[in-house]
Amino acid sequence: MLKQKVNISKVLIFFISFYGFGLKSAQSQNSVDSVQIRRMFDLALENGMAYDNLRTLCKNVGCRISGSEAADSAVNWGYNVMKGMMADTVYKIPIMVPQWVRGDIEKAFFISDKNKLSITALGGSIGTNGLLQAKVVIANGIEDLDRLGESKIKGNIVLFNKPFDPKIISGFEAYSACVGQRYSGASKAAAYGAVAVLVRSMTHKTDNNPHTGSMGYQEDIAKIPAAAISTEHADLLAIRVSKNPNLLIGLNLNCKTLDDKPSFNVVAEIRGQTEPQTIIAVGGHLDSWDIGEGAHDDGAGIVHSMELLRLMKANGYKPKHTIRIVLFMNEENGNRGGKGYAQWVKDRGEKHLMALESDAGGHTPRGFSITATDSQYAKIAAYRKLLEPFGCHVFQKSTWGGGVDINPLKLDAALTINPNMILLGFLPDAQRYFDYHHARTDVFENVHQRELEMGAGSIGAMVYLIDKYF
Amino acid sequence: MLKQKVNISKVLIFFISFYGFGLKSAQSQNSVDSVQIRRMFDLALENGMAYDNLRTLCKNVGCRISGSEAADSAVNWGYNVMKGMMADTVYKIPIMVPQWVRGDIEKAFFISDKNKLSITALGGSIGTNGLLQAKVVIANGIEDLDRLGESKIKGNIVLFNKPFDPKIISGFEAYSACVGQRYSGASKAAAYGAVAVLVRSMTHKTDNNPHTGSMGYQEDIAKIPAAAISTEHADLLAIRVSKNPNLLIGLNLNCKTLDDKPSFNVVAEIRGQTEPQTIIAVGGHLDSWDIGEGAHDDGAGIVHSMELLRLMKANGYKPKHTIRIVLFMNEENGNRGGKGYAQWVKDRGEKHLMALESDAGGHTPRGFSITATDSQYAKIAAYRKLLEPFGCHVFQKSTWGGGVDINPLKLDAALTINPNMILLGFLPDAQRYFDYHHARTDVFENVHQRELEMGAGSIGAMVYLIDKYF
Repeated sequence: MLKQKVNISKVLIFFISFYGFGLKSAQSQNSVDSVQIRRMFDLALENGMAYDNLRTLCKNVGCRISGSEAADSAVNWGYNVMKGMMADTVYKIPIMVPQWVRGDIEKAFFISDKNKLSITALGGSIGTNGLLQAKVVIANGIEDLDRLGESKIKGNIVLFNKPFDPKIISGFEAYSACVGQRYSGASKAAAYGAVAVLVRSMTHKTDNNPHTGSMGYQEDIAKIPAAAISTEHADLLAIRVSKNPNLLIGLNLNCKTLDDKPSFNVVAEIRGQTEPQTIIAVGGHLDSWDIGEGAHDDGAGIVHSMELLRLMKANGYKPKHTIRIVLFMNEENGNRGGKGYAQWVKDRGEKHLMALESDAGGHTPRGFSITATDSQYAKIAAYRKLLEPFGCHVFQKSTWGGGVDINPLKLDAALTINPNMILLGFLPDAQRYFDYHHARTDVFENVHQRELEMGAGSIGAMVYLIDKYF
Repeated sequence: MLKQKVNISKVLIFFISFYGFGLKSAQSQNSVDSVQIRRMFDLALENGMAYDNLRTLCKNVGCRISGSEAADSAVNWGYNVMKGMMADTVYKIPIMVPQWVRGDIEKAFFISDKNKLSITALGGSIGTNGLLQAKVVIANGIEDLDRLGESKIKGNIVLFNKPFDPKIISGFEAYSACVGQRYSGASKAAAYGAVAVLVRSMTHKTDNNPHTGSMGYQEDIAKIPAAAISTEHADLLAIRVSKNPNLLIGLNLNCKTLDDKPSFNVVAEIRGQTEPQTIIAVGGHLDSWDIGEGAHDDGAGIVHSMELLRLMKANGYKPKHTIRIVLFMNEENGNRGGKGYAQWVKDRGEKHLMALESDAGGHTPRGFSITATDSQYAKIAAYRKLLEPFGCHVFQKSTWGGGVDINPLKLDAALTINPNMILLGFLPDAQRYFDYHHARTDVFENVHQRELEMGAGSIGAMVYLIDKYF
């Protein structure tokens, strides 16, 4: 784009009117709400702490799988940062978490030429108990196992190679269509006699990064090892197997599950002015996978949530309801934090008006998913105009919750105390998320400062509106 | 994000309903339009050529400032690629373009310690004619010059150091608020006796990349050299000058302007079925600055436009009106392509129904700016629902055009032939654009494949709707 010699002022006007997301806010600047929301964004963008906090979490604490020393450090870090933000109360809620350990052996290779395959064990997998050698059978997802049958699968390794469908617009939806093979593939294949599974990494990209993630075993079926394989090497393996069905590969993993360990959800509160007994909970998850730095997943959600505390304090906003920031532990491989929190809430007989989760990365905000009654939704839908100047005004009525950590508060019958509570999920742009998700590339450098800060502003604005008008 | 052991199917449903931008399309799949639009996106995302074309343009042609050999290569590349896409007609429209040459000397440094400053000449600047040594005066934008006055400015270098305002949501709007100092700063400062200007780079980022861009001289004021300085070094220089106002810096540039040279706009057409005399023009600009690879600016717009040709052919769509892809030359430093095209259209007495420009980068689509009459706008606004499943449904009514190349078709009184033509500007996410804009970092690797392809789908959808319903 140029600035041309003639009519520089006209060109400026063109840019302002053409690209002026920001300008529309001026039209409603008279209202108290738009001033408050504008200040939330100003504080987040001009001297926000979200990005600096994310840097510390990623670089000083690092990856932090449940039960690890780093997870303990993350708990202390979260506690201390929120203490420093002058919350009215900061405390920890004890929970027990599973402890899965990757181990120091993680290898796959072609037996014939010893060329390596880029793999990483799936969280929850058992080890191979030494080197396992077998032929490979290709399955296009779980749904392909019946076609192959026991005759082709028994004694072999199944490569689940169903790719992300590039035609699906939302990355999360493409993920949902494939992730069954990762979570349930091992037991499904074991039922046909497979000795191990490799699962194509959950990403749009064709590259050499394996993406880990959780898997689970069905009771009453033999447990077999499971690892993710990079998309490049999944393609390579499939081609070589198609040329030579007798090709052997070696697999060696010494990952294992240890005893549960004590850990914590970390909580900070700003006490409500007029309805302190009613809670608005906002959170993300403090644990991450044990590769990368958990920057988008879910460092972003953690610092978004912490930033809310800072924005409200810095803005001098006194909420009606108690604003409770919850840094959940163990979202990735057990959901003990989310379930433990819901149980704790139930035991105390607390009422939640709303819970909001940020666990979809730190990219540019698009809007929110909203689980609410029709009348609640209609009320929230009216906020769209206030959020439009900031581009976070896509609202999606959801029937199934706002995030894995907060869903038990409403959607798990055994744990739910207020069936009319509102669940919100923060919804950023999702084209890049699965480039990094659960991979070594989920590092601080791949989070963009302004995009992250825009998310903090969006969450601040939404919480302000719900606190004020409900 | 995890897939948890219990209720895997429920979790899947959650993800689908939570993140399902894509799902809404299903609701209107019955209509011919939504099927056509869905196929545009499918073709762009599943086997799109935009990303491969961008790679070739960036890596084989490279940066391509008007008048350079690389710009000639870009013309040939564009012509040949569109020939290969089986357009009904491919041709070139001759224009004359300015020829500014950076030269091989581009240095700035502190005289005392010889430490270098990261600078790059602004396009259009004269050279220094050898080493220039002077003190530095800091101005917070053009508007700060009056305060400083001739007594402080005369004989010195002015550092224009007005930063992007991080509170402004749109990157383009933040740019507009600062770019005056880049385009007009030299003459404004020369009027007070300055000997040269350095201009803070037009970016949100604090880093060491200088961002070039065009500047112009006012007649009847002495011409002085002008260079961009990286934001890090602008800050450093400002600090050192504040401590020592007598600090000297050296500046040496041997850039210069040569005679105008012949070049071309490159055009390809699909002839309209029922109204071939009425044109829908879609374009971006083929030239770039002479650093980086012109990937976002405006390689993205070029391959978006070319991809429209391919999508329509592959989709078997026969447009009513003639669809004309225009690869404009010389947007960056002269607008000769845009003005030349408008003059050519006027000379031929052609009627344009609509012109659309993509010159805002290759990030995730958000929507379009629309310059149209009220009744035209109302008709277009009704397309929002069809575009919502793809997230490109933010429509902004603009009063000042769709892009620098297409604006002369409507907004330059001397060139306009159809005052009611519609101008559309493609509007992608703009948080990252100025990280790369006019800098060495504007390279292929910083464009995301899916984001780029989503842009091609969005433009395809919009052109389809306008062709069909106008």
